Amino acid sequence: MLKVEQKRPTKIVDISGTKVGGGHFLFCAGPCAVESRELLFKIADYLKKTPVNLLRGGAFKPRTSPYSFQGLGEDGLKILKEVSEYLGIPFVSEVTDTKYVEIVYKYADCFQIGSRNMSSFELLKEVGKTDKPVLLKRGMAATVKEFLNAAEYILNEGNENVILCERGIRSFDPEFRNILDLNAVAFLKQKTFLPVIVDPSHGTGKRSLVRRLSLAAIAAGSDGIIVETHPNPEKALSDGFQSLNIKEFISLSQEISSFVSYSGYELQKHQKD
Amino acid sequence: MLKVEQKRPTKIVDISGTKVGGGHFLFCAGPCAVESRELLFKIADYLKKTPVNLLRGGAFKPRTSPYSFQGLGEDGLKILKEVSEYLGIPFVSEVTDTKYVEIVYKYADCFQIGSRNMSSFELLKEVGKTDKPVLLKRGMAATVKEFLNAAEYILNEGNENVILCERGIRSFDPEFRNILDLNAVAFLKQKTFLPVIVDPSHGTGKRSLVRRLSLAAIAAGSDGIIVETHPNPEKALSDGFQSLNIKEFISLSQEISSFVSYSGYELQKHQKD
Amino acid sequence: MLKVEQKRPTKIVDISGTKVGGGHFLFCAGPCAVESRELLFKIADYLKKTPVNLLRGGAFKPRTSPYSFQGLGEDGLKILKEVSEYLGIPFVSEVTDTKYVEIVYKYADCFQIGSRNMSSFELLKEVGKTDKPVLLKRGMAATVKEFLNAAEYILNEGNENVILCERGIRSFDPEFRNILDLNAVAFLKQKTFLPVIVDPSHGTGKRSLVRRLSLAAIAAGSDGIIVETHPNPEKALSDGFQSLNIKEFISLSQEISSFVSYSGYELQKHQKD
Amino acid sequence: MLKVEQKRPTKIVDISGTKVGGGHFLFCAGPCAVESRELLFKIADYLKKTPVNLLRGGAFKPRTSPYSFQGLGEDGLKILKEVSEYLGIPFVSEVTDTKYVEIVYKYADCFQIGSRNMSSFELLKEVGKTDKPVLLKRGMAATVKEFLNAAEYILNEGNENVILCERGIRSFDPEFRNILDLNAVAFLKQKTFLPVIVDPSHGTGKRSLVRRLSLAAIAAGSDGIIVETHPNPEKALSDGFQSLNIKEFISLSQEISSFVSYSGYELQKHQKD
Repeated sequence: MLKVEQKRPTKIVDISGTKVGGGHFLFCAGPCAVESRELLFKIADYLKKTPVNLLRGGAFKPRTSPYSFQGLGEDGLKILKEVSEYLGIPFVSEVTDTKYVEIVYKYADCFQIGSRNMSSFELLKEVGKTDKPVLLKRGMAATVKEFLNAAEYILNEGNENVILCERGIRSFDPEFRNILDLNAVAFLKQKTFLPVIVDPSHGTGKRSLVRRLSLAAIAAGSDGIIVETHPNPEKALSDGFQSLNIKEFISLSQEISSFVSYSGYELQKHQKD
Repeated sequence: MLKVEQKRPTKIVDISGTKVGGGHFLFCAGPCAVESRELLFKIADYLKKTPVNLLRGGAFKPRTSPYSFQGLGEDGLKILKEVSEYLGIPFVSEVTDTKYVEIVYKYADCFQIGSRNMSSFELLKEVGKTDKPVLLKRGMAATVKEFLNAAEYILNEGNENVILCERGIRSFDPEFRNILDLNAVAFLKQKTFLPVIVDPSHGTGKRSLVRRLSLAAIAAGSDGIIVETHPNPEKALSDGFQSLNIKEFISLSQEISSFVSYSGYELQKHQKD
Repeated sequence: MLKVEQKRPTKIVDISGTKVGGGHFLFCAGPCAVESRELLFKIADYLKKTPVNLLRGGAFKPRTSPYSFQGLGEDGLKILKEVSEYLGIPFVSEVTDTKYVEIVYKYADCFQIGSRNMSSFELLKEVGKTDKPVLLKRGMAATVKEFLNAAEYILNEGNENVILCERGIRSFDPEFRNILDLNAVAFLKQKTFLPVIVDPSHGTGKRSLVRRLSLAAIAAGSDGIIVETHPNPEKALSDGFQSLNIKEFISLSQEISSFVSYSGYELQKHQKD
Repeated sequence: MLKVEQKRPTKIVDISGTKVGGGHFLFCAGPCAVESRELLFKIADYLKKTPVNLLRGGAFKPRTSPYSFQGLGEDGLKILKEVSEYLGIPFVSEVTDTKYVEIVYKYADCFQIGSRNMSSFELLKEVGKTDKPVLLKRGMAATVKEFLNAAEYILNEGNENVILCERGIRSFDPEFRNILDLNAVAFLKQKTFLPVIVDPSHGTGKRSLVRRLSLAAIAAGSDGIIVETHPNPEKALSDGFQSLNIKEFISLSQEISSFVSYSGYELQKHQKD
């Protein structure tokens, strides 16, 4: 039996103070990519009005095309650090290769392993050797068994602070970028003691569906959501079509807050006053 | 533009008194197949304790293998009629071929077109010529556009009483019989004025996931759910692995009732006292 | 064990003189839909220059949209009959509903059951009761086991003259209408005694790929191919993008002839001189 | 336009003397994983009887489970080097992380990037900076556009010696590990000047289908095949179910030889006498 499948109380993962699992709800938001210091502060200004308790933002971006914006690298991490301190909440950022583990470790509160790297086993082992939490996204066409085994690579190195993230799977319908697989969320919650969260932005690929699928994720048992937002989605350097604008995001936050509370979760308010 | 895509207030479909759409929630339940009169009355006895407002049961069963139980045919419809009158709620039953339209019309309050027949266009046209509602299930690998076009075949014959039903799509993960596609539910609710409901039994193929995915469906905006139940799922002649037993079903009914009310739907109580 | 899985020498299906299976290669071609008598005679004129031994053409067309061309019905069958006699080869045409079995039986030499109807079990049973061969296409998302079971519905009624046809399956890549599944062809050839043929037109959805995939199908062990051709594909009422024009078709025929012969099949020349 | 899509004559990639593309056929074979020196020499003894012109074998193995055999690492590379010199043909071996690029470069004649790493863009860039050929496998659920973009990452760093390898994609049918996508092979041959080869072992996941799908791949236009073989497949530490035994492999080699020659390719005989 895999370690991830052991019968144990739900693991509460602590990301520099923000807890997820065991009744603690993770509300993570931010832009797809850190584009500039100005932009991230603009986003911070409206995140302040919400109970977001984890900031997200890509500094090292894995892009389908080599000619797309590839992220700001270490500069992006520095900006994230600054904004995260300004907000008083921790941040998560993606690590795309073993050679970046050290630099991401230096700044971020939590590693993100993206879908494209779910089976980069050397990378999984490397973050498994650290003492920082890992937000592990399911591969685009990974079975739930493969997903659990990917988590096992991390646990097997000694790091149990793993958060599983369902983010949509490949399907035959060109109408959707991905199909959000809430079967997997309910299933994983029964199968493992690790917290499970949902990314409705990638999971739908459509701004107009994010609200409904966020609520559905919570109803399905998700321990948190991770949402993309941008003050001007049409001009975003990455994934604008699925990012919520300010008004949509504020409105989502309010609905999430009450539904999370109806569902019996605690949504920690962390931000500085 | 398709008729189904016209901008209109959500259609309220009236199934012999049970309404669905426009705030009216459809709670449909029953066995996969009508196996016997005794069994259906046994099920009726516990459905009485719930706010179920539409009875379901297969009399003509489309089965993968010719050697599986194929249903009781007209005898099954008679039993459904009797039990539906006993409960004081209408019933829906599947029609699998144009030659059965007349006989199903004679007994049932609502036609069901199953996944395997979503693209049986002659059948769609035939039920489109009648004045009874049609519960149209999405094909296992139908895109949402194909699904809307299938509904269009019915509307185009003059019958606007169509209820769309998402019931899970084919995917690569052998862990699940199907992947319940709640993206499609939220999308269809924006795209069409027809009511949209969800079948979490086929949509998951696992009894243990039905409860969570029923709630998720409602959160995603579904106008109703259709659930399989059997007093003794292990002995069911069809789909036992995804049917809820008595205790599970009663418990689900209670959760559904309060969540439906939290979500602002009306769940008509129809049954006789 | 299913009848279709019995260990027996490959069935040779005889379609009014044209044989398929057991070393006999079926070369079937024609337009997607019969559009007019003139058009079909125009096609016949270049089919005459090739070893095509079965004419195809849709009279009853199952179309995604109710507003697309739906076929000429019985008039289409009459035209096919006339052209088939002119060429001296039999023809196959699709039957989409039990109520059309009689009329298609009256004219056609072979029934075609299309992908959308692979699981229309009543229809399968109905053609299973006749004495004419059935060309059964695999459903767009049918597993090979479901495909074999669909054939079993026909055999179980007493009709063993079934030809299985792989025509591409649904996949995640929007570049292709379908993915031609040659794994299934090689697998089915080992698993059943029925002849197996391939439809590279639907299987690729791109005119430019038909030639290569026809050859690949033969190399994979296919007992025949069924190809769409149209003298003016750009103006075809259906599926023009995957239909070969005259020049392409003549050229394909020549390559097919020599490769079929290299592969040890017999390609019957049937047409009148 | 991508570099990989430029109109140019097919690139002939030279792997330490073995050529692929532009009429040169690559016949690559070996075990899934290098298990021991003894085993690889046993395999070499029967490869000698065939026109295999590239040896394959995994030293760094990306395995779904952390508890499966993970490969011999550098020791495996040393064994491959020794056997490759014994045979007089070059070898290819997988590199799974940027930190192994240097060590694999030291021994191997060609890098292999596996399916799980097709989107490990840092790894692609790293091998793109070297002067050794790269055999790039398509991701399990990568579209052909994503596949071409992955190759572009390598070309964009200056290394044009890229061989594309189709190895099967994820599908809904549990009967097959993957579906070999020969549509993609024919399509890629039209779209890019890079050589395209096929892996029928992973592409089918069944030993009994490898022969037929190898031939189909060649008919579809493939510039080569890469096949797994093992003297005792039942005891292989990895992928035995899809590896050919000695007799099957010798027999395949003979068929490949004549079919390659029928198809007009040159199959270089490289091995020492």
